[in-house]
Amino acid sequence: MNNKIKEFQKKLVKLKLPLALVFSTKLKDPAFFYFSKINPEYALMLISPNFSPKLYCSSLDFEELKVHSRIKPFLQFKKNTLEQIKKLTKTHKIKKMGVNFSYLTVNELKNLKKLFKCKFVDISGELLNLRAIKTNDEIKLYQKASKLTEQIWSRTLAQIKLKKLKTELQVKEFIEQQIKRINSAPSFPTIVASGKNAAIPHHVTNNAKLNGFCIIDFGIRYKGYCTDVTRTIFIGKPTNKEEKFYNLVYETKECAANKINCGEKTANIVKTARKHLGKYDKFFTHGLGHGIGLEIHELPNLKENSKEKFENGMIFTIEPGIYFKNKFGIRIEDDYLFERNKLIQLTKAPKKLVVV
Amino acid sequence: MNNKIKEFQKKLVKLKLPLALVFSTKLKDPAFFYFSKINPEYALMLISPNFSPKLYCSSLDFEELKVHSRIKPFLQFKKNTLEQIKKLTKTHKIKKMGVNFSYLTVNELKNLKKLFKCKFVDISGELLNLRAIKTNDEIKLYQKASKLTEQIWSRTLAQIKLKKLKTELQVKEFIEQQIKRINSAPSFPTIVASGKNAAIPHHVTNNAKLNGFCIIDFGIRYKGYCTDVTRTIFIGKPTNKEEKFYNLVYETKECAANKINCGEKTANIVKTARKHLGKYDKFFTHGLGHGIGLEIHELPNLKENSKEKFENGMIFTIEPGIYFKNKFGIRIEDDYLFERNKLIQLTKAPKKLVVV
Repeated sequence: MNNKIKEFQKKLVKLKLPLALVFSTKLKDPAFFYFSKINPEYALMLISPNFSPKLYCSSLDFEELKVHSRIKPFLQFKKNTLEQIKKLTKTHKIKKMGVNFSYLTVNELKNLKKLFKCKFVDISGELLNLRAIKTNDEIKLYQKASKLTEQIWSRTLAQIKLKKLKTELQVKEFIEQQIKRINSAPSFPTIVASGKNAAIPHHVTNNAKLNGFCIIDFGIRYKGYCTDVTRTIFIGKPTNKEEKFYNLVYETKECAANKINCGEKTANIVKTARKHLGKYDKFFTHGLGHGIGLEIHELPNLKENSKEKFENGMIFTIEPGIYFKNKFGIRIEDDYLFERNKLIQLTKAPKKLVVV
Repeated sequence: MNNKIKEFQKKLVKLKLPLALVFSTKLKDPAFFYFSKINPEYALMLISPNFSPKLYCSSLDFEELKVHSRIKPFLQFKKNTLEQIKKLTKTHKIKKMGVNFSYLTVNELKNLKKLFKCKFVDISGELLNLRAIKTNDEIKLYQKASKLTEQIWSRTLAQIKLKKLKTELQVKEFIEQQIKRINSAPSFPTIVASGKNAAIPHHVTNNAKLNGFCIIDFGIRYKGYCTDVTRTIFIGKPTNKEEKFYNLVYETKECAANKINCGEKTANIVKTARKHLGKYDKFFTHGLGHGIGLEIHELPNLKENSKEKFENGMIFTIEPGIYFKNKFGIRIEDDYLFERNKLIQLTKAPKKLVVV
């Protein structure tokens, strides 16, 4: 059985929770895949410190997924399943259950309360904290995923240099084709923003010709896990001032990374980065970074009001940027692993501005 | 302003709700796009019978989306926005608000309750009922979307006949390419299930060679709206018995469609279909159909325990199927519009089994 399930069972003991229900419904709780390695349309998992986990899956998905499930017994959801689970809760005298309030709608919880006459407690924080510390398997997977992400960027840059990709959309499509080629999917819709568009952090890629600073923000979803990198290149001839702005953003990233230590508050790193930007601080309009994993935004948060501290096993992005409205924008983002009290850079943006 | 917003404002009066909050968060409430025609990452809409709707959008999306929004004023979410909304609720003495409990997580509602000291009432049912009756614009859109869906199927069938598509995956990829070509997206992952695989309603398309009965279930998302059709063809030479099974499923669909009248309970149509299947009823293991719209499953439900009645403006699928485990499966699904007390077939599966 998955070690993280064992760890979670111990957490349940601490929380005095005899049972947790993890659902895969409209909102696919990543914890479901995290424990089971399958992604059913509708399914329910029972985790208890008192008995081994059980997984119930809709008959529509059953035949297809039973081979892949990490959790056995892998059971078929039948008409009497809920009655059986109710019996089980009676046998074990369960009066309190944990569910993920961040992945359950108000109506879903309402229906649960009607069904089971017991108290429901939120376990969203526990599940997020569990996922924030990556296992050795996850770390290995990220080393591979980062390499694949870098390879896709190299291939894309080569095509841009050959003038084969001339517009934002062409770059986006090329990247997404390459991602598909390796049987992966984009971890979010690729952003390509050139010229004035680069000043809009969430610009929707269009037919604009590549020109001046060009921000390319993309990632792959490899075996369920997200990478997330941003490269800024320059099409044309940058002025000295423009090169200096690139260097400023790059150094901000390095400076933030160098400050990271075990137990250090993530909020402090954000302060360091903002300080480094000096008077350009106000043009940095988003968070400094975020954990990555089964979701593109996970713990830890690298924001000014974040409460988290850096711990071994965390994988996260650092992505400073500056945006001058109607002029241009620069963002540089890399993925990092903190392990054995050391920061390991998983992806590497170039120190010197790439000029095409 | 959108007529549906006016209709919704009238509903709020009936419900004695002075304000409704519609969110676009982790769970993208389709009602948000329904009213505004935009799909922001994070946004909030205020709808009240007492003042014109307001829309607040994150600064990251603001520049990009303000042109497309149907709702003006289109405002930027700022640090003091929630304080302003709180003031507004005080000015209007609002003590009760409507929110969509089916698209709000338990934690999101918890945060709202902390912020606004008022009662929150579920409006999920009202929003679903509103969306179930399509407007003239939506009906026009569906006529176009259905044609596009049929065209994609014709092109796919032609390629299968030319033996250019020989495996499940090849068919799926061709269909999804064609969908992309018309700047559309699949409304759900295309299902291609051949031979024994066709007996698994939610089969995950693989490299299996097309052989025997082959079920192809796909749809497009056209301007936000989903189509959903299933075609079953036969690769090879079907026996008389196999042809009879196709005819049985086809006639079941026709027989159900013919029974539809204004005010008729959808559950009665399901009974009609099951009766028509006779002793093969037990091999029909899913619902008879479902409304389609911004979501692939909307009201009305065509299930045995459904409470809905057919009304003018409804658009839905009828999709009987039979599945013989480890042998084969057949499903035929078309999209229908009920308008001016008449059933209009939007897509047309062939009466005679197509043999390749």
